[in-house]
Amino acid sequence: MPEQETPEPEPTGDGAVDGAAETEKQIAELEDSWRRTAAELDNVRKRCAKDVIRAREQERAWVAARWLPVLDNLERALEHASSDPDQIVEGVRAVHQQALAVLADLGYPRRDDETGKAFDPAHHEAVSTVTGDDLVPGTVAHVVRPGYGTDGEILRPASVVVATRSA
Amino acid sequence: MPEQETPEPEPTGDGAVDGAAETEKQIAELEDSWRRTAAELDNVRKRCAKDVIRAREQERAWVAARWLPVLDNLERALEHASSDPDQIVEGVRAVHQQALAVLADLGYPRRDDETGKAFDPAHHEAVSTVTGDDLVPGTVAHVVRPGYGTDGEILRPASVVVATRSA
Repeated sequence: MPEQETPEPEPTGDGAVDGAAETEKQIAELEDSWRRTAAELDNVRKRCAKDVIRAREQERAWVAARWLPVLDNLERALEHASSDPDQIVEGVRAVHQQALAVLADLGYPRRDDETGKAFDPAHHEAVSTVTGDDLVPGTVAHVVRPGYGTDGEILRPASVVVATRSA
Repeated sequence: MPEQETPEPEPTGDGAVDGAAETEKQIAELEDSWRRTAAELDNVRKRCAKDVIRAREQERAWVAARWLPVLDNLERALEHASSDPDQIVEGVRAVHQQALAVLADLGYPRRDDETGKAFDPAHHEAVSTVTGDDLVPGTVAHVVRPGYGTDGEILRPASVVVATRSA
Protein backbone atom coordinates (compact mmCIF):
# COMPACT_ATOMS: atom_id res chain seq x y z
CA MET A 1 0.00 0.00 0.00
CA PRO A 2 1.13 3.57 -0.66
CA GLU A 3 2.80 5.21 2.31
CA GLN A 4 0.85 8.40 1.66
CA GLU A 5 -2.85 8.14 1.14
CA THR A 6 -4.00 8.81 -2.39
CA PRO A 7 -5.88 12.09 -2.26
CA GLU A 8 -9.51 11.56 -3.15
CA PRO A 9 -10.68 13.70 -6.09
CA GLU A 10 -12.44 16.60 -4.47
CA PRO A 11 -15.81 17.66 -5.89
CA THR A 12 -15.27 20.54 -8.28
CA GLY A 13 -16.10 23.73 -6.45
CA ASP A 14 -17.63 27.06 -7.39
CA GLY A 15 -16.34 27.87 -10.86
CA ALA A 16 -14.84 26.07 -13.85
CA VAL A 17 -11.56 27.98 -13.47
CA ASP A 18 -11.21 27.03 -9.77
CA GLY A 19 -12.04 23.44 -10.69
CA ALA A 20 -9.43 23.31 -13.41
CA ALA A 21 -6.75 24.74 -11.14
CA GLU A 22 -7.73 22.27 -8.43
CA THR A 23 -7.52 19.38 -10.88
CA GLU A 24 -4.13 20.45 -12.18
CA LYS A 25 -2.86 20.65 -8.60
CA GLN A 26 -4.22 17.20 -7.92
CA ILE A 27 -2.54 15.76 -11.01
CA ALA A 28 0.76 17.39 -10.06
CA GLU A 29 0.54 15.93 -6.55
CA LEU A 30 -0.26 12.48 -7.87
CA GLU A 31 2.63 12.59 -10.29
CA ASP A 32 4.93 13.72 -7.52
CA SER A 33 3.79 10.91 -5.20
CA TRP A 34 4.22 8.36 -7.94
CA ARG A 35 7.69 9.62 -8.82
CA ARG A 36 8.77 9.55 -5.21
CA THR A 37 7.48 6.00 -4.74
CA ALA A 38 9.26 4.94 -7.94
CA ALA A 39 12.50 6.52 -6.74
CA GLU A 40 12.12 4.73 -3.39
CA LEU A 41 11.55 1.45 -5.25
CA ASP A 42 14.76 2.01 -7.16
CA ASN A 43 16.66 2.75 -3.93
CA VAL A 44 15.27 -0.31 -2.16
CA ARG A 45 16.26 -2.55 -5.08
CA LYS A 46 19.83 -1.22 -5.03
CA ARG A 47 20.06 -1.40 -1.24
CA CYS A 48 18.76 -4.97 -1.29
CA ALA A 49 21.46 -6.10 -3.72
CA LYS A 50 24.08 -4.57 -1.40
CA ASP A 51 22.44 -6.12 1.69
CA VAL A 52 22.62 -9.58 0.14
CA ILE A 53 26.33 -9.19 -0.70
CA ARG A 54 27.10 -7.89 2.79
CA ALA A 55 25.10 -10.71 4.41
CA ARG A 56 27.17 -13.26 2.47
CA GLU A 57 30.44 -11.61 3.46
CA GLN A 58 29.46 -11.42 7.13
CA GLU A 59 28.30 -15.03 7.19
CA ARG A 60 31.45 -16.21 5.45
CA ALA A 61 33.66 -14.44 8.00
CA TRP A 62 31.52 -15.67 10.90
CA VAL A 63 31.61 -19.30 9.81
CA ALA A 64 35.31 -19.20 8.88
CA ALA A 65 36.19 -17.70 12.27
CA ARG A 66 34.54 -20.65 14.01
CA TRP A 67 37.34 -22.85 12.64
CA LEU A 68 40.25 -20.82 13.95
CA PRO A 69 40.25 -22.43 17.44
CA VAL A 70 40.26 -25.84 15.73
CA LEU A 71 43.30 -24.80 13.72
CA ASP A 72 45.02 -23.38 16.81
CA ASN A 73 44.58 -26.70 18.62
CA LEU A 74 45.74 -28.68 15.60
CA GLU A 75 48.92 -26.60 15.60
CA ARG A 76 49.40 -27.12 19.31
CA ALA A 77 49.03 -30.88 18.85
CA LEU A 78 51.67 -30.78 16.10
CA GLU A 79 54.05 -28.67 18.18
CA HIS A 80 54.03 -31.34 20.89
CA ALA A 81 54.40 -34.15 18.36
CA SER A 82 58.19 -34.24 18.37
CA SER A 83 58.51 -34.21 22.16
CA ASP A 84 55.81 -36.81 22.80
CA PRO A 85 54.56 -38.71 19.73
CA ASP A 86 51.96 -40.63 21.76
CA GLN A 87 50.34 -37.43 22.95
CA ILE A 88 49.52 -36.29 19.44
CA VAL A 89 46.90 -39.01 18.97
CA GLU A 90 44.99 -37.82 22.02
CA GLY A 91 45.42 -34.21 20.93
CA VAL A 92 44.16 -34.87 17.41
CA ARG A 93 41.21 -36.86 18.73
CA ALA A 94 40.24 -33.83 20.81
CA VAL A 95 40.60 -31.54 17.76
CA HIS A 96 38.40 -33.92 15.78
CA GLN A 97 35.69 -33.77 18.44
CA GLN A 98 36.01 -29.99 18.49
CA ALA A 99 35.58 -29.85 14.69
CA LEU A 100 32.46 -32.05 14.92
CA ALA A 101 31.08 -29.74 17.60
CA VAL A 102 31.64 -26.68 15.36
CA LEU A 103 29.78 -28.34 12.49
CA ALA A 104 26.92 -29.45 14.76
CA ASP A 105 26.73 -25.94 16.17
CA LEU A 106 26.45 -24.51 12.65
CA GLY A 107 23.46 -26.82 12.13
CA TYR A 108 25.24 -29.74 10.47
CA PRO A 109 25.68 -32.59 12.95
CA ARG A 110 27.48 -35.71 11.82
CA ARG A 111 24.92 -38.34 10.83
CA ASP A 112 25.93 -41.46 12.72
CA ASP A 113 24.13 -44.80 13.04
CA GLU A 114 23.20 -45.01 9.35
CA THR A 115 24.28 -48.67 9.13
CA GLY A 116 21.24 -50.96 8.96
CA LYS A 117 18.86 -48.16 7.99
CA ALA A 118 16.80 -48.37 4.80
CA PHE A 119 18.67 -46.82 1.88
CA ASP A 120 17.27 -43.32 1.27
CA PRO A 121 18.59 -41.34 -1.71
CA ALA A 122 17.88 -38.09 0.18
CA HIS A 123 20.38 -39.06 2.91
CA HIS A 124 22.60 -41.66 1.28
CA GLU A 125 24.77 -41.88 -1.80
CA ALA A 126 25.35 -45.45 -2.92
CA VAL A 127 28.96 -46.06 -3.90
CA SER A 128 28.69 -49.84 -4.25
CA THR A 129 26.57 -52.84 -3.34
CA VAL A 130 27.18 -55.97 -1.34
CA THR A 131 25.30 -59.22 -0.73
CA GLY A 132 25.36 -61.28 2.43
CA ASP A 133 23.18 -63.72 4.35
CA ASP A 134 23.14 -61.45 7.37
CA LEU A 135 22.23 -58.31 5.38
CA VAL A 136 18.72 -57.04 4.66
CA PRO A 137 18.48 -56.03 0.98
CA GLY A 138 17.84 -52.33 0.49
CA THR A 139 19.57 -51.31 3.71
CA VAL A 140 22.87 -49.57 4.37
CA ALA A 141 25.49 -52.28 4.88
CA HIS A 142 28.41 -49.96 5.60
CA VAL A 143 29.18 -46.23 5.70
CA VAL A 144 32.27 -45.33 3.65
CA ARG A 145 32.14 -41.59 4.36
CA PRO A 146 29.84 -40.02 6.94
CA GLY A 147 27.06 -37.60 6.04
CA TYR A 148 26.43 -34.26 7.73
CA GLY A 149 23.31 -32.23 8.36
CA THR A 150 19.79 -32.62 9.69
CA ASP A 151 16.88 -34.46 8.10
CA GLY A 152 15.66 -31.08 6.88
CA GLU A 153 19.01 -29.84 5.64
CA ILE A 154 21.56 -32.36 4.45
CA LEU A 155 24.97 -30.74 3.98
CA ARG A 156 26.43 -33.90 2.50
CA PRO A 157 24.80 -37.31 2.12
CA ALA A 158 26.62 -40.31 3.58
CA SER A 159 28.52 -42.42 1.03
CA VAL A 160 27.31 -45.96 1.67
CA VAL A 161 27.52 -49.54 0.51
CA VAL A 162 24.00 -50.86 -0.05
CA ALA A 163 22.96 -54.44 0.65
CA THR A 164 21.29 -56.16 -2.33
CA ARG A 165 19.53 -59.44 -2.91
CA SER A 166 21.97 -62.15 -3.96
CA ALA A 167 21.53 -63.26 -7.59
CA MET B 1 12.69 6.53 -12.38
CA PRO B 2 9.15 5.20 -12.89
CA GLU B 3 9.03 2.10 -15.07
CA GLN B 4 6.08 3.53 -16.95
CA GLU B 5 6.30 7.02 -18.33
CA THR B 6 4.10 9.54 -16.62
CA PRO B 7 1.40 10.39 -19.15
CA GLU B 8 1.68 14.01 -20.17
CA PRO B 9 -1.53 16.00 -19.60
CA GLU B 10 -3.10 16.17 -23.02
CA PRO B 11 -4.39 19.52 -24.22
CA THR B 12 -8.11 19.69 -23.44
CA GLY B 13 -9.98 19.03 -26.65
CA ASP B 14 -13.25 20.15 -28.13
CA GLY B 15 -15.66 20.48 -25.22
CA ALA B 16 -15.63 20.95 -21.46
CA VAL B 17 -17.40 17.61 -20.97
CA ASP B 18 -14.79 15.76 -23.06
CA GLY B 19 -12.03 17.58 -21.18
CA ALA B 20 -13.44 16.63 -17.79
CA ALA B 21 -13.79 12.97 -18.77
CA GLU B 22 -10.23 13.00 -20.13
CA THR B 23 -8.94 14.52 -16.90
CA GLU B 24 -10.78 11.99 -14.75
CA LYS B 25 -9.31 9.19 -16.85
CA GLN B 26 -5.85 10.68 -16.46
CA ILE B 27 -6.24 10.91 -12.67
CA ALA B 28 -7.49 7.34 -12.48
CA GLU B 29 -4.49 6.14 -14.53
CA LEU B 30 -2.05 8.07 -12.36
CA GLU B 31 -3.57 6.67 -9.20
CA ASP B 32 -3.39 3.20 -10.65
CA SER B 33 0.28 3.60 -11.63
CA TRP B 34 1.14 4.95 -8.20
CA ARG B 35 -0.68 2.13 -6.43
CA ARG B 36 1.05 -0.47 -8.55
CA THR B 37 4.47 1.05 -7.90
CA ALA B 38 3.70 1.17 -4.17
CA ALA B 39 2.61 -2.49 -4.22
CA GLU B 40 5.83 -3.40 -6.04
CA LEU B 41 7.83 -1.47 -3.43
CA ASP B 42 6.13 -3.49 -0.72
CA ASN B 43 6.89 -6.75 -2.54
CA VAL B 44 10.54 -5.83 -3.12
CA ARG B 45 10.97 -5.00 0.58
CA LYS B 46 9.54 -8.37 1.64
CA ARG B 47 11.50 -10.27 -1.00
CA CYS B 48 14.70 -8.54 0.05
CA ALA B 49 14.32 -9.64 3.66
CA LYS B 50 13.88 -13.23 2.45
CA ASP B 51 16.82 -12.92 0.02
CA VAL B 52 19.12 -11.82 2.84
CA ILE B 53 18.10 -14.77 5.03
CA ARG B 54 18.54 -17.22 2.16
CA ALA B 55 21.92 -15.73 1.22
CA ARG B 56 23.12 -16.28 4.79
CA GLU B 57 21.91 -19.88 4.84
CA GLN B 58 23.51 -20.65 1.47
CA GLU B 59 26.80 -19.07 2.48
CA ARG B 60 26.83 -20.91 5.80
CA ALA B 61 26.29 -24.26 4.09
CA TRP B 62 28.85 -23.46 1.39
CA VAL B 63 31.56 -22.45 3.86
CA ALA B 64 30.80 -25.34 6.26
CA ALA B 65 30.98 -27.84 3.39
CA ARG B 66 34.50 -26.66 2.57
CA TRP B 67 35.63 -28.19 5.88
CA LEU B 68 34.23 -31.67 5.32
CA PRO B 69 37.27 -32.93 3.33
CA VAL B 70 39.50 -31.63 6.14
CA LEU B 71 37.44 -33.62 8.64
CA ASP B 72 37.52 -36.71 6.43
CA ASN B 73 41.30 -36.59 6.28
CA LEU B 74 41.58 -35.96 10.00
CA GLU B 75 39.54 -39.11 10.56
CA ARG B 76 41.69 -41.09 8.15
CA ALA B 77 44.82 -39.95 9.97
CA LEU B 78 43.30 -41.09 13.27
CA GLU B 79 42.25 -44.46 11.83
CA HIS B 80 45.83 -45.17 10.88
CA ALA B 81 47.15 -43.95 14.24
CA SER B 82 46.98 -47.32 15.99
CA SER B 83 48.68 -49.22 13.17
CA ASP B 84 51.45 -46.68 12.58
CA PRO B 85 51.81 -43.96 15.23
CA ASP B 86 54.60 -42.24 13.31
CA GLN B 87 52.44 -41.84 10.26
CA ILE B 88 49.85 -39.76 12.11
CA VAL B 89 52.23 -36.80 12.46
CA GLU B 90 52.70 -36.63 8.69
CA GLY B 91 48.96 -37.11 8.15
CA VAL B 92 48.02 -34.35 10.59
CA ARG B 93 50.58 -32.00 9.06
CA ALA B 94 48.92 -32.54 5.69
CA VAL B 95 45.47 -31.89 7.22
CA HIS B 96 46.81 -28.71 8.79
CA GLN B 97 48.07 -27.50 5.40
CA GLN B 98 44.72 -28.39 3.87
CA ALA B 99 42.89 -26.39 6.54
CA LEU B 100 45.14 -23.38 5.88
CA ALA B 101 44.41 -23.69 2.16
CA VAL B 102 40.65 -23.71 2.82
CA LEU B 103 40.93 -20.55 4.90
CA ALA B 104 43.13 -18.84 2.30
CA ASP B 105 40.69 -19.84 -0.40
CA LEU B 106 37.83 -18.30 1.59
CA GLY B 107 39.82 -15.05 1.60
CA TYR B 108 41.52 -15.42 4.98
CA PRO B 109 45.16 -16.43 4.51
CA ARG B 110 47.27 -17.04 7.58
CA ARG B 111 49.31 -13.90 8.30
CA ASP B 112 52.88 -15.11 8.64
CA ASP B 113 56.10 -13.13 9.02
CA GLU B 114 54.66 -10.66 11.54
CA THR B 115 57.71 -10.92 13.80
CA GLY B 116 59.84 -7.79 13.51
CA LYS B 117 57.06 -5.70 11.95
CA ALA B 118 55.93 -2.46 13.56
CA PHE B 119 53.09 -3.09 16.01
CA ASP B 120 49.81 -2.14 14.31
CA PRO B 121 46.60 -2.35 16.37
CA ALA B 122 44.64 -3.05 13.18
CA HIS B 123 46.58 -6.30 12.63
CA HIS B 124 47.99 -7.14 16.05
CA GLU B 125 46.63 -7.68 19.53
CA ALA B 126 49.25 -7.12 22.21
CA VAL B 127 49.11 -9.80 24.91
CA SER B 128 52.32 -8.79 26.69
CA THR B 129 55.54 -6.83 26.31
CA VAL B 130 59.20 -7.71 26.39
CA THR B 131 62.49 -5.80 26.45
CA GLY B 132 65.74 -6.86 24.92
CA ASP B 133 68.90 -5.40 23.47
CA ASP B 134 68.30 -7.05 20.13
CA LEU B 135 64.66 -5.89 19.92
CA VAL B 136 63.42 -2.68 18.30
CA PRO B 137 60.85 -1.01 20.61
CA GLY B 138 57.39 -0.85 19.08
CA THR B 139 57.86 -3.95 16.94
CA VAL B 140 56.41 -7.44 17.23
CA ALA B 141 58.89 -9.53 19.22
CA HIS B 142 56.98 -12.80 19.01
CA VAL B 143 53.66 -14.14 17.65
CA VAL B 144 51.73 -16.12 20.27
CA ARG B 145 48.74 -16.95 18.05
CA PRO B 146 48.67 -16.29 14.30
CA GLY B 147 46.30 -13.84 12.68
CA TYR B 148 44.18 -14.55 9.62
CA GLY B 149 42.86 -12.40 6.78
CA THR B 150 44.07 -9.80 4.33
CA ASP B 151 45.14 -6.24 5.01
CA GLY B 152 41.67 -5.16 3.90
CA GLU B 153 39.78 -7.77 5.89
CA ILE B 154 41.30 -9.10 9.08
CA LEU B 155 39.44 -12.18 10.30
CA ARG B 156 41.46 -12.31 13.51
CA PRO B 157 44.41 -10.15 14.53
CA ALA B 158 47.60 -11.92 15.54
CA SER B 159 48.19 -12.14 19.30
CA VAL B 160 51.68 -10.77 19.79
CA VAL B 161 54.32 -9.88 22.33
CA VAL B 162 55.45 -6.30 21.73
CA ALA B 163 59.02 -5.10 22.24
CA THR B 164 59.29 -2.04 24.51
CA ARG B 165 62.03 0.33 25.54
CA SER B 166 63.82 -0.95 28.66
CA ALA B 167 63.18 1.19 31.75
